[in-house]
Amino acid sequence: MLGTRFLSLPRRSIYLVRASKHQFGVKGAIDLQTSPLSKHNHSNSQSQAFSKAKNKRLNILWTLGGVLGGFALYEHKYKLRNVKLNEIHTKDSKNKINDKNPDWHTKIRNDLPTYNMSEVQAHCSREKRVWITYGIGVYDVTEFIAEHPGGENIMLGAGSAIDPFWDIYQQHNTKEILTLLEFYRIGNLFIGDWIKRSDMDSPWAHEPNRHPILKPTSERPFNAEPPINLLTANFVTPNDFFYIRNHLPVPLIDVKQYELEIQIETLKSGVDEQTKTLSLDDIKRMPKHSVTAAIMCGGNRRSEMSKVKPVQGLTWNAGAVGNATWSGASLREVLLKMGVKPNENLHVILEGADLDPTSHPYGASIPLTKAMDERGDVILAYEMNGMPLSRDHGYPLRCIVPGTVGARNVKWLTRLAVSEKESNSHWQQNDYKGFSPSTDWDTVDFSKSPSIQAMPVTSAICKPLAGEELKISDDGYITIQGYAWSGGGRRIIRVDLTIDQGKTWHVAELQQEDQPDGRHYGWSLWTGRIPVEKTTKHEIEIWAKAVDSAYNVQPESFSNIWNLRGVLSNAYHRVKVKIN
Amino acid sequence: MLGTRFLSLPRRSIYLVRASKHQFGVKGAIDLQTSPLSKHNHSNSQSQAFSKAKNKRLNILWTLGGVLGGFALYEHKYKLRNVKLNEIHTKDSKNKINDKNPDWHTKIRNDLPTYNMSEVQAHCSREKRVWITYGIGVYDVTEFIAEHPGGENIMLGAGSAIDPFWDIYQQHNTKEILTLLEFYRIGNLFIGDWIKRSDMDSPWAHEPNRHPILKPTSERPFNAEPPINLLTANFVTPNDFFYIRNHLPVPLIDVKQYELEIQIETLKSGVDEQTKTLSLDDIKRMPKHSVTAAIMCGGNRRSEMSKVKPVQGLTWNAGAVGNATWSGASLREVLLKMGVKPNENLHVILEGADLDPTSHPYGASIPLTKAMDERGDVILAYEMNGMPLSRDHGYPLRCIVPGTVGARNVKWLTRLAVSEKESNSHWQQNDYKGFSPSTDWDTVDFSKSPSIQAMPVTSAICKPLAGEELKISDDGYITIQGYAWSGGGRRIIRVDLTIDQGKTWHVAELQQEDQPDGRHYGWSLWTGRIPVEKTTKHEIEIWAKAVDSAYNVQPESFSNIWNLRGVLSNAYHRVKVKIN
Repeated sequence: MLGTRFLSLPRRSIYLVRASKHQFGVKGAIDLQTSPLSKHNHSNSQSQAFSKAKNKRLNILWTLGGVLGGFALYEHKYKLRNVKLNEIHTKDSKNKINDKNPDWHTKIRNDLPTYNMSEVQAHCSREKRVWITYGIGVYDVTEFIAEHPGGENIMLGAGSAIDPFWDIYQQHNTKEILTLLEFYRIGNLFIGDWIKRSDMDSPWAHEPNRHPILKPTSERPFNAEPPINLLTANFVTPNDFFYIRNHLPVPLIDVKQYELEIQIETLKSGVDEQTKTLSLDDIKRMPKHSVTAAIMCGGNRRSEMSKVKPVQGLTWNAGAVGNATWSGASLREVLLKMGVKPNENLHVILEGADLDPTSHPYGASIPLTKAMDERGDVILAYEMNGMPLSRDHGYPLRCIVPGTVGARNVKWLTRLAVSEKESNSHWQQNDYKGFSPSTDWDTVDFSKSPSIQAMPVTSAICKPLAGEELKISDDGYITIQGYAWSGGGRRIIRVDLTIDQGKTWHVAELQQEDQPDGRHYGWSLWTGRIPVEKTTKHEIEIWAKAVDSAYNVQPESFSNIWNLRGVLSNAYHRVKVKIN
Repeated sequence: MLGTRFLSLPRRSIYLVRASKHQFGVKGAIDLQTSPLSKHNHSNSQSQAFSKAKNKRLNILWTLGGVLGGFALYEHKYKLRNVKLNEIHTKDSKNKINDKNPDWHTKIRNDLPTYNMSEVQAHCSREKRVWITYGIGVYDVTEFIAEHPGGENIMLGAGSAIDPFWDIYQQHNTKEILTLLEFYRIGNLFIGDWIKRSDMDSPWAHEPNRHPILKPTSERPFNAEPPINLLTANFVTPNDFFYIRNHLPVPLIDVKQYELEIQIETLKSGVDEQTKTLSLDDIKRMPKHSVTAAIMCGGNRRSEMSKVKPVQGLTWNAGAVGNATWSGASLREVLLKMGVKPNENLHVILEGADLDPTSHPYGASIPLTKAMDERGDVILAYEMNGMPLSRDHGYPLRCIVPGTVGARNVKWLTRLAVSEKESNSHWQQNDYKGFSPSTDWDTVDFSKSPSIQAMPVTSAICKPLAGEELKISDDGYITIQGYAWSGGGRRIIRVDLTIDQGKTWHVAELQQEDQPDGRHYGWSLWTGRIPVEKTTKHEIEIWAKAVDSAYNVQPESFSNIWNLRGVLSNAYHRVKVKIN
């Protein structure tokens, strides 16, 4: 079974040096702006930053990719550095720098010494200083550790080449980050030790083809959404247009070798500890259940929240949601068959075959109560809208957890465990949680917030798009369309629209499944017709807000729900259009 | 069993004439301001009002009391009328009018003729005109029917004395309404036919004593809340301080005769139609379950919403909520014992022993799914905080429906039915529902909104009270306390406070039960400490907002959640205080 887990990403432990906590404590700071290449000066602001960083919770198993939005903070420093670095490089006439994507790390710097790999490997802790290599460059990043948005995880690459990490997390390959790196350069790598990218069997080599209509917010891992004005065209989103949210490379799974491993880890489940493995055929032989459920990324509509203040995460528009009919075996039935009893204190851990650079799988968990609830409709799905799951959507098996944030709907499901604790994965513990608007990266304590499970009520205007020019119908109306959804199986009961800042609200017509409340997992599409006076061309702002069956409503604006990860972005959707 | 239902309120059918729908259609209107005593002139605005009124949904079983807020609309017309009426009355020197509560209906008007009761009874339809009597006054209210906030229900009194109705719904006894009535006066009642109030056995004769700390929002029916700064003193609200929300007179129930009638009305329940009666002892012999649950009136905090625009209903402050431990038999167990199977399309109808003037009981319903859910914790409670229920809280039996609006927690429970339809009571069908802010009494269609069940997330600041003067502690903080709650068993996960309009938010400490999410029915009390600069005396506004386990948040302001009944008032709580 483990074979399937390692199919896509060979373990590269040679590159990994795990930092231990006691390696902390070295203080040091530099004046980034005045002395780019002297690393031993001190400045007050940097010392403070370092000191604050010590208070941060350390994410041991983070994804480098997930938190790199923080690099934006360095953007203002970029220009100063860029000028200086270009000066240095252009001194050597051989170095023609590609300004769009500076490839300094592929060039020898004649102003710096050369080191071989064993020298680099000797610098793998704060005490010995932390060196890394990238391409032909050797870098001392000791002083950067405190600034690194991912905290201590930078130590995973200490004393080694970071090429394999950055090969996975292509988000590093920006002008700003490459510039920042070059700033820490201390030398050139002995050419015989250079690991060429082309030499490595890339974990991205087996990414599936995607429909070109999907607009990527990140290429590696692949994350993409359809244009939102396509969403309302179909009550069930066509598979090819369904948004894709991958945290890691898509694993290549041989279905003949595929097995789902189920572990009962606690006697509190009502049964002895035991393990069971199911092949895909075993799962298909079980009674087939179908549920229509919208799946929504916790970061859907993040781009709107980030306008208030920058947040960390992929800049999703309102298209990180889709509605599909999923079919497969009932998780409840699988667990009942094993003798598991309801227990409100237990969890079901879900793990995928997608692995991070340390060979740890993507993981999440849900309360056992949700899994055991007949009305919870949790299924081990092998079909999406009547078709086998595509590789991007979890082939061969995805756990569908209706009404719950996308992150818990684990794809490429290979391990499932009944446990006393939630998943200890980064994504369960230190991501996908909400915080107060005044919580920042210096004060955040991820253990203080519950992991997102059921999502709050939301809606979005899909047609018209912002900036579009709208014609008034002969009878004096404009037509607006969109979607609305709430988590926890709560039905949408009303969508209100206004074009006069809330002076007048118009109730939209809903298209939705006739499912009982508490089990209403599909989205609602809506159409509103609003009377508009035929005057001269002018601009209007349309607002949409939805109400769910518990009469929960969307908040008005993003400023008071802002959170540092930019999740749960469910304020009124506002779109400015022109009327003709 | 029926005996218990009639203990408190003898049927007075002699006063009741039920209107039939075909009595509609007579058009007519008057110019109220220019010709107060001529009822046959026409004005455009009145004709329009009449025409609109025909489109209103007719509430056949309304409570006169519940909708009388609409009379406020007439307040602006009151002064004009008052002047004219006083002129008429003072022509007769014997009539000294009490201006605070004008008792014109107890005085003979020498400018008008005298009628006997049989003449009044002949005027009981629009065709024959609609006369009523009140005290010694005879009134032709035909033209008022269209304006009556309760619509056609006014016809219940057609051709008879309305004293028995107004005796129950004491809210009529205001200067404005008595003035409005006198305006329609056409004569004096023959003295021999005058039904004196003292002659009637008042349904209010047996109201229990209440703790003087409860501040009534209405005396009859009795509705009262404690001062909100008392609420946070106890995690479990003392019974005597628990808000009281009665829709009708409190029934006087002889517990020896008391029976709960249970009816299975549909084969879809999995069992034959059947009836079962349980005495209180039968119920007490069943396993005893306890649940800590907050109960909140659907109109809690209505007074805040009504500041945006008037609404109909009792003007509750934020005290129409309390938290108690309720004990009794499990409704699920009762139903399972009768063989009832889960069915998501069925309902459980709940009826009280409290009767309206037509001898119809207070009624509500909940989904059978809630009743059958082990985690739903619906109980037939006979104890509140370890004490037998008091008469105001439903003695001897109240159905506790945790996480659900107070109105479905039916007191004096005497009938319970498993049914294909929701309760057809006024309170289920035509009250306790939310609407768009632009829905008014001319356009409302109660059939279009679902009845409120689970309540949305809310919170309130209990200490300090508005206008209070706050001292800053020696270490520079002010302390704020309050409650937060969400329906559907959703746990409160965070309460945010701000004193600078949201620029900075402070997370409060929570006091709550350790219950699993989805079954977290008690409220959360919270305490926040906010640093305040010691400057000169100044005013600040404190805002509180809560977040529940589905990360639903409160809306910012009332204007965009305004609804004509003033329910679901869950916007941020904002309190202005002075800092010293």
